[in-house]
Amino acid sequence: MSEEELNERHAEKMRRKKAAREKILATKTIEKGLLIVHTGKGKGKSTAAFGLIFRALGHGFKVGIVQFVKGAWDTGERVVLDKFPDQVTVKVMGDGFTWDTQDRARDIASARAAWDAAKEMIADPSYRMILLDELNIVLRYGYLPLEEVVETLKAKPDDTHVIVTGRNAKDELVEIADLVTDMTQIKHPFRAGVKAQVGVEF
Amino acid sequence: MSEEELNERHAEKMRRKKAAREKILATKTIEKGLLIVHTGKGKGKSTAAFGLIFRALGHGFKVGIVQFVKGAWDTGERVVLDKFPDQVTVKVMGDGFTWDTQDRARDIASARAAWDAAKEMIADPSYRMILLDELNIVLRYGYLPLEEVVETLKAKPDDTHVIVTGRNAKDELVEIADLVTDMTQIKHPFRAGVKAQVGVEF
Repeated sequence: MSEEELNERHAEKMRRKKAAREKILATKTIEKGLLIVHTGKGKGKSTAAFGLIFRALGHGFKVGIVQFVKGAWDTGERVVLDKFPDQVTVKVMGDGFTWDTQDRARDIASARAAWDAAKEMIADPSYRMILLDELNIVLRYGYLPLEEVVETLKAKPDDTHVIVTGRNAKDELVEIADLVTDMTQIKHPFRAGVKAQVGVEF
Repeated sequence: MSEEELNERHAEKMRRKKAAREKILATKTIEKGLLIVHTGKGKGKSTAAFGLIFRALGHGFKVGIVQFVKGAWDTGERVVLDKFPDQVTVKVMGDGFTWDTQDRARDIASARAAWDAAKEMIADPSYRMILLDELNIVLRYGYLPLEEVVETLKAKPDDTHVIVTGRNAKDELVEIADLVTDMTQIKHPFRAGVKAQVGVEF
């Protein structure tokens, strides 16, 4: 095939693709706040959530962040959040990873305090986006009643986006979510003996 | 089992988990810049990459961004990048999605210009992190010689992190990457008729 034929064929293919895409978009008319879940064993669950949070901040939206497991954050994220002091509310409730505290009763109390803060944010429709970071971990350990969490999330204001992160998302949460992404690990530097480092790993 | 026994058993389990974790971390001693690939059909590939970029900015690092496909970005991200004017270099080289331009020759020229800008950044060790956004798309369409891209990435400075995003990452790229995550779509709001919206979809 000549270069010209190749180009013409390509243009035709792209015209069809564009038309198909526009047709799909035209059928999507419901605008609403989404319940988004980032789960899976791979990297990027919280990082992608922060990407959404930063984007929302760029749009001037008010956002809330509840950290259910302390120690999971990189200081770099705080520096960026601090650029938007009037738009962000951050609640850091965890007392550390569970393998650090080794104290189940204290972990349960921390989870409850974090969840109470989260419920308050969810009830306030002025928040356009709320990140419940590592909530899945807390649910997996059974530190909060799943039913209460599911009911609260189902009743969130229509315009509020809520993002839940962490491995092992509960089926009941996936069931009610609008958008679920599994970050699947294909290759990890730990296998090659590379140390966790500032700016990429926490 | 009594609550007390449950707590004691939990503490013992967490002690073992912590010890195992520390043992693993102790063996990881190589510090180096990573080649990171975000691929897959799910959401979050570029968003997670921007999360890493923002984190790096928070650490005061100099970062470079090359956008291979125009139109993929949300304006919110630009607002956040603009908060760090001295640390960020952005090159927007694409002329639009290929299904918008419908012009293969122009797309190839755009890809070449973007790649030349990327190569310049990669050759400059003052960049600590470089995002090659949607490079996978361009490679998939065959708009750049894969071998040249692979050789350049293999020869990147040791301390530079390079992130490549986009669906359908080439096997040759996955092969040389340090960290590869596949964003796997479990559930997408399009299925439920929800429209793309500011702050979540581009």
